[in-house]
Amino acid sequence: MKLDEHLLDALLARWPVARLATRTPDAEPHVLPVVFVAEAGQVSSPVDGKRKGASSLARVRNIEAHGRASLLLDHYDADWSQLWWVRLDGPAWIERGSGERMDRVGAQLRDKYPQYRDVVPFSGEPTLLVLRWSRVSAWSQAGSDAPIRRAAGMA
Amino acid sequence: MKLDEHLLDALLARWPVARLATRTPDAEPHVLPVVFVAEAGQVSSPVDGKRKGASSLARVRNIEAHGRASLLLDHYDADWSQLWWVRLDGPAWIERGSGERMDRVGAQLRDKYPQYRDVVPFSGEPTLLVLRWSRVSAWSQAGSDAPIRRAAGMA
Repeated sequence: MKLDEHLLDALLARWPVARLATRTPDAEPHVLPVVFVAEAGQVSSPVDGKRKGASSLARVRNIEAHGRASLLLDHYDADWSQLWWVRLDGPAWIERGSGERMDRVGAQLRDKYPQYRDVVPFSGEPTLLVLRWSRVSAWSQAGSDAPIRRAAGMA
Repeated sequence: MKLDEHLLDALLARWPVARLATRTPDAEPHVLPVVFVAEAGQVSSPVDGKRKGASSLARVRNIEAHGRASLLLDHYDADWSQLWWVRLDGPAWIERGSGERMDRVGAQLRDKYPQYRDVVPFSGEPTLLVLRWSRVSAWSQAGSDAPIRRAAGMA
């Protein structure tokens, strides 16, 4: 299914969670949930102040070792006619440090997630995982973009 | 966080959706949502009668090309204190054909998902994607298994 660009932007602006697949330095698959903001064909996900375990560091190490990622936005519903997913694939990299770009992403994160009133958007040195998608895949059980339009607040 | 084995079994029996990461024949990451049942250290996910696109066939091809998978169960909540995830990693393979084992998995799928009254559990030649987990990773923002116990119906 081909996804309209405005619909993708609206979905990325509103949908709160995605699952990020990377590969480990040993070339094994790895997957974690992430929060994110999107702008200009890029998704940015922070290493934020949520509790961190080894897997959180692993996603950074994985992308440093192999600069590709696959990011899934999807909705599970007991009514299977409402199922949909959208996947973004492309090159990925790590950005670190401070500056205008990091400030802007921090502001976007605080706009999208009121939870950042209680949790810092960046833990330690500001670090972003960035995916520039080169392919968009989309599916819905209904066979149309109607459930995705609803998820994006466009219906 | 170490996850109690009974808790993991209860979670797998109840939680309806997981995100499956594999790698493509080109060794790129790939991720899709799946339904599944679990038994004896294995998760089985069917190629069922839901609408199928290229990605659905891709997960089978991926596992045939590289027999490893990473399966994520997680919960997103606007209350970030309720966030948790559990990830299973290990060898994966494809099973095809009919017989007692496939019948049993079909019955487990129909037990877990009433939706299979309207959708066939197997589309065409019965095909299962099987992951035998060799590692269990778990995380919660609360730092305890309490939110996972609630998700598993054990609290």
